[in-house]
Amino acid sequence: MAGSSFIKVGASENIYEDKMHHGHFNMCGYAAPKLDTVRIGFIGLGNRGPSHVSDMTCIEGVEIKALCDIRPEKVNTVKKSLEGSAHNPEAYTGGKDDWKKLCERPDIDVVYIATPWSLHTPIAVYAMNNGKHTCTEVPAAKTIDECWQLVETSERTRKHCMILENCCYDFFELLTMNMARQGLLGEIVHGEGAYIHDLLAGNFSKEKYYDMWRLKENLRNGNLYPTHGLGPVAQVMNINRGAKMDYLISMQSKDFMMGKMANELAAKDDFYKPFADKSYRGNMNTSTICTDKGLTIKLQHDVTSPNIYSRIYKISGTKGSSLKYPLPGKFSIEGNENWLNQQTYSDMEKKYTPDIVIKVGEMAKKVGGHGGMDFLMNWRTIDCLRNGLPLDIDVYDAAAWSAIAPLSEWSVANHSKPINIPDFTSGSWKTNQPVGNTLQKGGTTKVM
Amino acid sequence: MAGSSFIKVGASENIYEDKMHHGHFNMCGYAAPKLDTVRIGFIGLGNRGPSHVSDMTCIEGVEIKALCDIRPEKVNTVKKSLEGSAHNPEAYTGGKDDWKKLCERPDIDVVYIATPWSLHTPIAVYAMNNGKHTCTEVPAAKTIDECWQLVETSERTRKHCMILENCCYDFFELLTMNMARQGLLGEIVHGEGAYIHDLLAGNFSKEKYYDMWRLKENLRNGNLYPTHGLGPVAQVMNINRGAKMDYLISMQSKDFMMGKMANELAAKDDFYKPFADKSYRGNMNTSTICTDKGLTIKLQHDVTSPNIYSRIYKISGTKGSSLKYPLPGKFSIEGNENWLNQQTYSDMEKKYTPDIVIKVGEMAKKVGGHGGMDFLMNWRTIDCLRNGLPLDIDVYDAAAWSAIAPLSEWSVANHSKPINIPDFTSGSWKTNQPVGNTLQKGGTTKVM
Repeated sequence: MAGSSFIKVGASENIYEDKMHHGHFNMCGYAAPKLDTVRIGFIGLGNRGPSHVSDMTCIEGVEIKALCDIRPEKVNTVKKSLEGSAHNPEAYTGGKDDWKKLCERPDIDVVYIATPWSLHTPIAVYAMNNGKHTCTEVPAAKTIDECWQLVETSERTRKHCMILENCCYDFFELLTMNMARQGLLGEIVHGEGAYIHDLLAGNFSKEKYYDMWRLKENLRNGNLYPTHGLGPVAQVMNINRGAKMDYLISMQSKDFMMGKMANELAAKDDFYKPFADKSYRGNMNTSTICTDKGLTIKLQHDVTSPNIYSRIYKISGTKGSSLKYPLPGKFSIEGNENWLNQQTYSDMEKKYTPDIVIKVGEMAKKVGGHGGMDFLMNWRTIDCLRNGLPLDIDVYDAAAWSAIAPLSEWSVANHSKPINIPDFTSGSWKTNQPVGNTLQKGGTTKVM
Repeated sequence: MAGSSFIKVGASENIYEDKMHHGHFNMCGYAAPKLDTVRIGFIGLGNRGPSHVSDMTCIEGVEIKALCDIRPEKVNTVKKSLEGSAHNPEAYTGGKDDWKKLCERPDIDVVYIATPWSLHTPIAVYAMNNGKHTCTEVPAAKTIDECWQLVETSERTRKHCMILENCCYDFFELLTMNMARQGLLGEIVHGEGAYIHDLLAGNFSKEKYYDMWRLKENLRNGNLYPTHGLGPVAQVMNINRGAKMDYLISMQSKDFMMGKMANELAAKDDFYKPFADKSYRGNMNTSTICTDKGLTIKLQHDVTSPNIYSRIYKISGTKGSSLKYPLPGKFSIEGNENWLNQQTYSDMEKKYTPDIVIKVGEMAKKVGGHGGMDFLMNWRTIDCLRNGLPLDIDVYDAAAWSAIAPLSEWSVANHSKPINIPDFTSGSWKTNQPVGNTLQKGGTTKVM
C-alpha cells in the first residue's frame, strides 16, 4: 500500500517507562457527582489568581470559600474586591504551608491553583487526597514523576485534575476545532503552537513574581511553557482520545540575553548577585512531536528575545488549514490561493461558531481576561461540575501537555535526540472518546 | 560564565565524514579573471530556463551562445523569443547527452543549468571540467556525495559553481540582511525559512515536468527543497564565513495525500500505473539546525497540503526581528509591542535598502520573475563575472544548503536522530569573510 510505509529504523530513548496500571480507573470521560453549588478555594493570588476569582463572581452557583497566598497583601486585595458581593471567603496567609489548611477544609469542592509552577503538583495532589477537585494553572507538573503523581492521585481519588489551559477556549481555536470536527479541513496532518512572548524585563523584576520564582525556572533548558501552544492542537488531533503523542525532538539556541542581563544587574545591585554567573535557558526552543498516526506538531518557546507576541496557532489538513499570528485567525480551503476573504470568513464563522461562544461569548468579552477565553474556560468548568459532566480537559491532558517541558529538557541536554512520550492513559487512549468544547451537553449555568 | 554552558551529552550521528583536504584551493572569495563579455549556454528550458534567458537579454555584456533541452519545442520557443535580438544561439536538442556538447564548446564562459534536479550535479561537474563557470538551479545536488563532487571539481578547476538561490535577492531578505549587518537586530539568535507551496496538481500533471521527474523526486522523504528558506538565513548568519552548521534533526508527517492521489489516478488512467502503490514523501517536514555558535534554524517543507504559499522568512536577534509571510515583510525592534508602523518601516527602508536594489531594483520589478529577485540575482552574477569579483554565493553554499535534503532524509528515516552536517569548506569557514549582496564593489554593468 502507498502512503505511510517508509521504514523508520532506530527508536527514541525510552527514559521514562510507561507505568501501565491495568485495571486503573479511567478518568477520561469521568463524570463526578453533580454539585449544585461549587465551593471553591483559591491558592495563589499573585498574577492569575485574582482574575479567576473575579470570573467566578459572575457565574451562577459558585461560592468563593477561601483565599490563600503567602503574602497577606495579595489576599487582602482580593478579599476587598469581594466586599459587597455574596462571597466572604476565609483568608489563609503568612505561612508557607497555609495552603494545606485550605485543602483540608471539608466545605470546599474545588481548589484553584495559581501558585509558582513548583507548587502546582504538590498542592493538586494534596487537594485531591483531601477529596477536592483541582484546577491548576499551566504547566500542571514540572517533571515526569509529577505527571504520574497527578494521574495516580486523580485515578485513585476519582477527583478531577484539570489544567487551566485557557487557549483551548480562545474563540478562534474553538472555531477551528469545530470546523475540523465537521471535516472542513479534511484529515489533520500537522499542527503548530508557540509561546513567543518577551518576558525578559518581567522575569528580572523584583516585584512581579514572588521570590523571583519565574526567573529561577529559567535556569532549566527546554520548552518550559508548552501548553498554550499544544493544548488546542492536541484537542483537534484527539490526543489521549483515539491518538497519542509518540516521541519528540527538541533543539534550543544558546542563551544570548538572560545570563548577560543577570551579570549586568548583579554588577550594579547586590540583590541580583545570586543570579549572576549561571546558565539560563537558551532564547529559542523548537520542539517537534510525532503522533502514533504520523501527524506532526511543532512547538516553539522564546520568552527572552524581543519578538511580537505569537502563539502561531496552525492546523494543517488535507482540505484546508487555519493560522493565527501574526495575522488574526484565517482559514484557507483547498483550491484557493489566498485566505478566505472577510465575507466568506464571516459566513464560516456564523455557521461554525460553537454553541459555547454563542451562549457565553458576549459576556466573556465583557468580563475580559485574555479576550474572553479565561471566562469561557471558567464558566465551562463550573457548568460541567454543576451538571455532573466530564470536564473537557482531564488529568491525562494535564500530564501529557505538561510533560513536554521535561522531555524537551532531556532532548536538548542530549544533543536533540528523540525521546518517547509516556502514555499517561495506560492504554485507554485507544478507546477514549473525543471531547468537543461545544456544549453538546450542559450549558444551564447562568452568567450574572 | 553565564550563558552558553549547558552541558550537552551525546553526539550526532556522523554518517558522512568530512573530507578535509588540507591545502585545498579555497573558492570562497575567489575572483575569477574578468570577462568583458559573458558568453552563456543554457541547459534545461522547461520552467526556469526561459526566464533566465529572458533576463540575460536585458543585461549588458552578455552573449547567449547556446540553448539545450531534450525537447526540440522547448528550444524552439526560446530561440524564437530571441529573434530580432542581438542573440542567435545554437540549438542542442533531441539527444540525452546533447548537454555534453554544449559544455564542450570553447566559446562559452558560463553554463546555466535548469534541468531536473538529478542532472544538476552531473552537468555542473562536466561543465567545470570543461573550463566553464556554472550557475545551477536549486538544489545543486541531491546527495552528500554529489555535494563533495561539486566542491572538489570547483576547487580543482577554479571555476565558480553558484547555486541560483533567487530568494537571497528578494528585496525584503536583502533589506533584512543589510539591517542585520548594521546591527539593528543585535546578535542573531534564530532564523526560519520554509517552502510551503501547494504543488500537488503540478506534480501529477502530465505536461509540467519532463518525464514526471518532479513527482518521482517525491518518492524520497525529507526536506527536499530547503534552499529557498535556508539561503537568506545562512547569509545573515554568515554560514561558511565565520560560522558553520553543526547538526540537524528532522521530522516528517505521514503522507496523507500523494499516495492516495497516485492510486486514484492509476485506477482511471494507465499512465499513472507506475506511480501507484508507492511510498511518497510525507506532507510536512520540519527540520531544525544548530550552528557552531548555538544559533538555531528552523526549516519547513510542505508541497502537498492546501496551504497558502509561505517561505516564513524570520530572523530573530537580541535587539529586533524580521518576519515575512503570511504578512508582507515586517520588523520589530526591542521596546515595541507591535511591528514597526508603516511610516517607521518606510524610513528604515529608505535608510537601509541596499545599493543593489537602489541601482537595479526598478528594472528588476519591470522584468519581473518572482517580483524581481530573479533579475537582481542574474544581473549581480553577470556584474561580478564582468568585474572579476567573487560571487555572493559559492560552491560551499551550494553544497551546504543542498545537503539539508539528504541529511534530513537520513534523520527522518532514523527516528529523527541528530546527524552532523559536513563542513564542505575543509575548515576555511573559520577565516572566510562574510559577503554582503550590497554592491560594495562592482555595479558597472548596465541594464538595457
